[in-house]
Amino acid sequence: MTVGILLFEEFETLDVFGPVEILGRLKKEYKIKFYSLSGGDISNSHGVTIFTKKLEEIKNGVDIFLIPGGYGTRIEVENVMLLKTIREISELSKYVLTVCTGSALLAKTGLLDFKNATTNKIAFDWVITNGQNVNWIRKARWVVDEKFYTSSGVSAGMDMTLDFLKDLHGVNIARQVSKEIEYEWTEDSKNDSFC
Amino acid sequence: MTVGILLFEEFETLDVFGPVEILGRLKKEYKIKFYSLSGGDISNSHGVTIFTKKLEEIKNGVDIFLIPGGYGTRIEVENVMLLKTIREISELSKYVLTVCTGSALLAKTGLLDFKNATTNKIAFDWVITNGQNVNWIRKARWVVDEKFYTSSGVSAGMDMTLDFLKDLHGVNIARQVSKEIEYEWTEDSKNDSFC
Repeated sequence: MTVGILLFEEFETLDVFGPVEILGRLKKEYKIKFYSLSGGDISNSHGVTIFTKKLEEIKNGVDIFLIPGGYGTRIEVENVMLLKTIREISELSKYVLTVCTGSALLAKTGLLDFKNATTNKIAFDWVITNGQNVNWIRKARWVVDEKFYTSSGVSAGMDMTLDFLKDLHGVNIARQVSKEIEYEWTEDSKNDSFC
Repeated sequence: MTVGILLFEEFETLDVFGPVEILGRLKKEYKIKFYSLSGGDISNSHGVTIFTKKLEEIKNGVDIFLIPGGYGTRIEVENVMLLKTIREISELSKYVLTVCTGSALLAKTGLLDFKNATTNKIAFDWVITNGQNVNWIRKARWVVDEKFYTSSGVSAGMDMTLDFLKDLHGVNIARQVSKEIEYEWTEDSKNDSFC
């Protein structure tokens, strides 16, 4: 399955590379690539720079479209062209996963309207202004509604991605991956100590 | 403080970007850069490529030298030039942090001889063959011995890095960062459920 990861300036490091570690372990199942609106190098203030292809290359969708959060989302929620592209790709993708404030971008496209979703705890009150018809759930490590998986802040993206593996490959595979990376997986999405 | 992160082909994604997320949050305190023996693009099979400077640029040491693990360490433990360079940089750096099987590389230089250290659980029996004079501690989320911080597998690198923040900036800063990234920090290094 193809995994297309959206990047933009000031993406959050672990929002991206937590899920990449987890999906990347199933090498035969997942092929991960990075995309941005204009392509080229995308950076954040943690010193991380990743080369990206143009989003238009996946305009017909991917198996898994992953939207991270980060300070950059505060700017990108006003980027009409990016939001239009996110909407098009998300509609045609099999699954859409957001981490942290990445849900603000997806919510702003309207695709989360009348669906259950969650987001980062500290930025919660800002994120929900970007999707007033979304049924935002504050106490949740992550939320699944049909093809949309939305997680709480940063590290919660790893718990959500393990749950995604569980849904597609069974709980034993998900537990095996969490053991390999020595990660204490919060298996219950309602177990949210940060709320 | 300068953070120099060693990369090599087939580094483990989260070994690198967990600590980067945590140190990167203290933007005024830490400046993160990536290095490899020959410089240039370094990749792994998770689809991640990072541009690196040459290690010789930090031959006089850095404040924090971080050595990740990954399958690449199985090859790099035979790379005499890399081991020589790791030893030189580690001797002149203020702190040396290893994640997962990164401790195999550091152990092979001899710098961990007669010191306490730990490593990845699944690869434990292989790693210790690279440092027969090291006092390897199997049940530990991470181990600190003077300037050397060594962690258990992958995610344990985040717990160790939070402990490093605690040692340098106090426990409140470390807890604040773990809360911001909604990470359930295992504060006790002896609390190792993967052993």
